[in-house]
Amino acid sequence: MQPFSFQNPTRLHFGAGQLERLRDEVPHGAHVLLVYGGGSIKRSGLYDQVHAHLQALGAVVTELAGVEPNPRLSTVRRGVTLAQGSVTHILAVGGGSVIDAAKAIAVSARSAHDAWDLILNPSLITGALPLGVVLTHAATGSEMNPISVITNEGTLDKRGWASAHAYPTFSILDPAFTLTAPRDQTAYGLIDMMSHVLEDYLDTTTNTPVQDAWAEGLLRVLIDTGPKLVADLGNLELRETAMLAGTWAFNGALAMGKDGDWASHRIEHALSALHDVPHAAGLSVVMPAWMEYAAQERPEKLARLAERVLGVHRMERSDALVAREGITRLRSFWRSLGAPTRLHELNIPDTDIPKLAELSVLRGEPFGNLRPLGRADVEAILRLAH
Amino acid sequence: MQPFSFQNPTRLHFGAGQLERLRDEVPHGAHVLLVYGGGSIKRSGLYDQVHAHLQALGAVVTELAGVEPNPRLSTVRRGVTLAQGSVTHILAVGGGSVIDAAKAIAVSARSAHDAWDLILNPSLITGALPLGVVLTHAATGSEMNPISVITNEGTLDKRGWASAHAYPTFSILDPAFTLTAPRDQTAYGLIDMMSHVLEDYLDTTTNTPVQDAWAEGLLRVLIDTGPKLVADLGNLELRETAMLAGTWAFNGALAMGKDGDWASHRIEHALSALHDVPHAAGLSVVMPAWMEYAAQERPEKLARLAERVLGVHRMERSDALVAREGITRLRSFWRSLGAPTRLHELNIPDTDIPKLAELSVLRGEPFGNLRPLGRADVEAILRLAH
Repeated sequence: MQPFSFQNPTRLHFGAGQLERLRDEVPHGAHVLLVYGGGSIKRSGLYDQVHAHLQALGAVVTELAGVEPNPRLSTVRRGVTLAQGSVTHILAVGGGSVIDAAKAIAVSARSAHDAWDLILNPSLITGALPLGVVLTHAATGSEMNPISVITNEGTLDKRGWASAHAYPTFSILDPAFTLTAPRDQTAYGLIDMMSHVLEDYLDTTTNTPVQDAWAEGLLRVLIDTGPKLVADLGNLELRETAMLAGTWAFNGALAMGKDGDWASHRIEHALSALHDVPHAAGLSVVMPAWMEYAAQERPEKLARLAERVLGVHRMERSDALVAREGITRLRSFWRSLGAPTRLHELNIPDTDIPKLAELSVLRGEPFGNLRPLGRADVEAILRLAH
Repeated sequence: MQPFSFQNPTRLHFGAGQLERLRDEVPHGAHVLLVYGGGSIKRSGLYDQVHAHLQALGAVVTELAGVEPNPRLSTVRRGVTLAQGSVTHILAVGGGSVIDAAKAIAVSARSAHDAWDLILNPSLITGALPLGVVLTHAATGSEMNPISVITNEGTLDKRGWASAHAYPTFSILDPAFTLTAPRDQTAYGLIDMMSHVLEDYLDTTTNTPVQDAWAEGLLRVLIDTGPKLVADLGNLELRETAMLAGTWAFNGALAMGKDGDWASHRIEHALSALHDVPHAAGLSVVMPAWMEYAAQERPEKLARLAERVLGVHRMERSDALVAREGITRLRSFWRSLGAPTRLHELNIPDTDIPKLAELSVLRGEPFGNLRPLGRADVEAILRLAH
């Protein structure tokens, strides 16, 4: 383990009826910037419920609607303009994209710097408007972490950033609000969670039995829950399990004392910046190929994953062979949820590979811990993924 | 799962060299009440290290030494008198007893009420002096939770209490500071951790796969680590594992959405109030008997524990039989660490059982969730434990 500091200040309110907690969390007479995406919260009735609560609190409400998947810098800037007046609180109602945009708005509204300058250099961030979340999609963990991903559509730079000021103050997680998520989106959420766990798990750090046991437990729960949930989207208990798993897959607990290896995310960000594919669809393509190429640096850890999580029996084989079967099983599992696992299934031609590799190293190379990756390595990974 | 709210504000600083963080956590010129126990921190040199840091910060230091295991109300009151002057910060250097006493001092120093009134009625607590911890013993989890246990030696009432104001502001966990803990104390720490996990695990709540997977993972890690550590007390990696496990066994994460069942702790508190036995020695006697008597209400959960954690093979037996073998194995495991598992090994005669049962229901009956317990039930459990 490596020395670390850990603190997560977000208040979680989880379960049926927790939307009521808005009454404790939002002060009377607040001016709330309500941030949301498309019309799904209007169709589900959640939009009306939130408005009723805010009205009862005597809140003034300004709206930023239409936050897109892979949220864009221009949307963030639009929100900052709305927030810089008399807005006192931001309430994000949606999934990871809505929350990520709201985080960027929250920190920018309290800064003289432009949003993109803060994203490029989070040490400039000195404060934020208080941010609350009502989560409608179990996936990114953004509801209980300080991380956000914003795409600069001008430069095709999709960039993750983090700041201690970007933790939501509170997050309301009622699994009933996720019941309307369609099959694909639900499956992608599960894959996103699994990738977060795996990117902390497959790293260079040794002596991490507590973190490893939890990561393996969470992965086993997701592998058990996933197929049942995509076959039974209205099952509230399975939704509940997925929602709790998604939050704890990426709230810092599994990363304690570990360096992690987020190279797959970096490569995926290039894919979804250039082609606007769903984040998890990109991950399910990139990550197994990254495991074949880079995570083989720790074959014993990959073999442990294969045996403890993916049901591989060792049968006196080497770590490398057990690991290889594990990767094959992971691809099969993600395919069984309906996700692509090959680049061509995303309709990305192999002629795009050099451009994708170039985008991946936009912020310099090498990157990644298990095996530091340069542009040529990314090309090799994407060819393995094709 | 049940609806729940979760927040844990304590900043953990974990690993080698983290004592340095005192420089960020304690402001220059603070007046610090240093709370500690016996002389072990003087023998280990930690006392001198802490003083050197505080001196470099220009801190004024007042000392409360001699906090006993099972800390007493009179000690807390002595600390409150010291703290109510110009003290601005409390620094607890020690294990659970020292931290628990410091929590009671911290909240009482900011109140017009007597310490025992606050413990009996924590809703009276309105604030606390900021409390920092330097942990020297891996066991209770008090370093990252809002819980404290204080014994009123006048009435033999050993009482747990909790308040959102009782979270340490920060806790410094350097596994090297636990290297000097002797064998018995080390083993008792591991048993204390396991009991915390089990008391959240064996409850009435259903659909808790995430919490269950983590609980089982933590228990497996402790069962793997325990025998190695008591045979190799100077092993820093094993100390590191135990220290992280102890904190997360009881910081609220495993209790999310569950009702838990803390009846064993209540009964044990009667034992250690009357006989001043080590807390974990009492637990290793009481808990298996409680499992035989009360946790059998959920034989399928006990059987799951037996199979997933304690290595029991089902061999077509009923849940009840698998559960029984699991309890036997748990007793054997704790005995292998050197702990007593029978009342008579604590030199407690069976003639004391009625008195112990009476003390257990001092705050009313029934208590416990899996099977609500009255005085006669406690007597039956203690006879099973004899």
